[in-house]
Amino acid sequence: MRIDIISVLPELMVSPFQTSILKRAVEKGLVEVNFHQLRDWSIGKHKQIDDEPYGGGAGMVMMVEPLDKCISELKSARNYDEIIYLTPDGKTLNQKTANTLSIQENLLFICGHYKGIDQRVRDLHVTLEISIGDFVLTGGELAACVLADSIIRLLPGVLNDEQSALTDSFQDDLLSPPIFTRPKIYKNLEVPEILLSGDTAKIEDWKYEEALRITEERRPDLLGN
Amino acid sequence: MRIDIISVLPELMVSPFQTSILKRAVEKGLVEVNFHQLRDWSIGKHKQIDDEPYGGGAGMVMMVEPLDKCISELKSARNYDEIIYLTPDGKTLNQKTANTLSIQENLLFICGHYKGIDQRVRDLHVTLEISIGDFVLTGGELAACVLADSIIRLLPGVLNDEQSALTDSFQDDLLSPPIFTRPKIYKNLEVPEILLSGDTAKIEDWKYEEALRITEERRPDLLGN
Repeated sequence: MRIDIISVLPELMVSPFQTSILKRAVEKGLVEVNFHQLRDWSIGKHKQIDDEPYGGGAGMVMMVEPLDKCISELKSARNYDEIIYLTPDGKTLNQKTANTLSIQENLLFICGHYKGIDQRVRDLHVTLEISIGDFVLTGGELAACVLADSIIRLLPGVLNDEQSALTDSFQDDLLSPPIFTRPKIYKNLEVPEILLSGDTAKIEDWKYEEALRITEERRPDLLGN
Repeated sequence: MRIDIISVLPELMVSPFQTSILKRAVEKGLVEVNFHQLRDWSIGKHKQIDDEPYGGGAGMVMMVEPLDKCISELKSARNYDEIIYLTPDGKTLNQKTANTLSIQENLLFICGHYKGIDQRVRDLHVTLEISIGDFVLTGGELAACVLADSIIRLLPGVLNDEQSALTDSFQDDLLSPPIFTRPKIYKNLEVPEILLSGDTAKIEDWKYEEALRITEERRPDLLGN
């Protein structure tokens, strides 16, 4: 998989991709992540990339021309399965979307900044608009990191234990059951006896019942109730 | 505001806090962010922080003792308004939660990793469990960055233009209207005439109507429909 990310702040995204699982995924060649500094496509003698919004209002708008040029250049080099704009008014990211994107080959992410991007960039190029949630961030960069992380960890060979991703929250529309490890008793708090029983079938039943209980309590919407 | 973050991978969070708005917020003294490497509280001669889950299953579990010691030490130094565990089965983050947290003084974030943390840490210390969305990440670190960013940008003095945060998506339960900047025509795509009219009242009406239209189309749930 190849992910291209257009941003005015690529340096914000350095450490997440140089650490732990994402770093190993890149080193193993399972994913190639390329940052593109939008300022390299700035226009005019002032090397402009943003300007004031038509109709007034606070905040700057990222101009259509630098983004159009940057995206067009990238598109001329390869076919993108999706050109994704990270924006609070996009489709809310969920595990199914991450799963779907994880089987694509080429993805292009556009990080908005300031007040957002000129609508015409969306009309010209964007094939998918994604929000990571109902909250506002200082820019699309952290959202791009989150989206990339949610996708990359699903690529075969990225996680050490392939089972691990399959038993995660959301893969079966249930939250995870409580988990415990040693010691059995800590400050009078005990591990549930069933988990120490060695009875695999009963333990699996308990985990399922607990997952169901927690999902009903916290997120009945996931059960379609 | 002070934010403490406990993690096994504090290095993952370096660049987001050293860039742009978060960097300036820290430099201006509007927020103090402290990372705590959980391995400094590891136990035994093997400097252990995680172990296999009771009852079997894939993935490691972060042990209760190192986290309890680390959290207890931090709690002995100050009162935390909230001790927040970032976890997919937490309460879904939204702008209202970010607003509420932005008026607190001391926040402690716990980043889970591997399969998560021993349930007893949650029972002993955690006052709020937050999920940034219905998807799984390689760890809680990016979620902590997202939560911190959503909160810090709301602190007075952090954004240059105070108006800017107030007109963001979600602050009024509406998505943003389309935005445009120069030029008026780009590749035959024109800016809506109303935005060039100079008629402020009509422009505000148009923006509101567009925000309503887009919210109805994309996120009717925000309107309570």
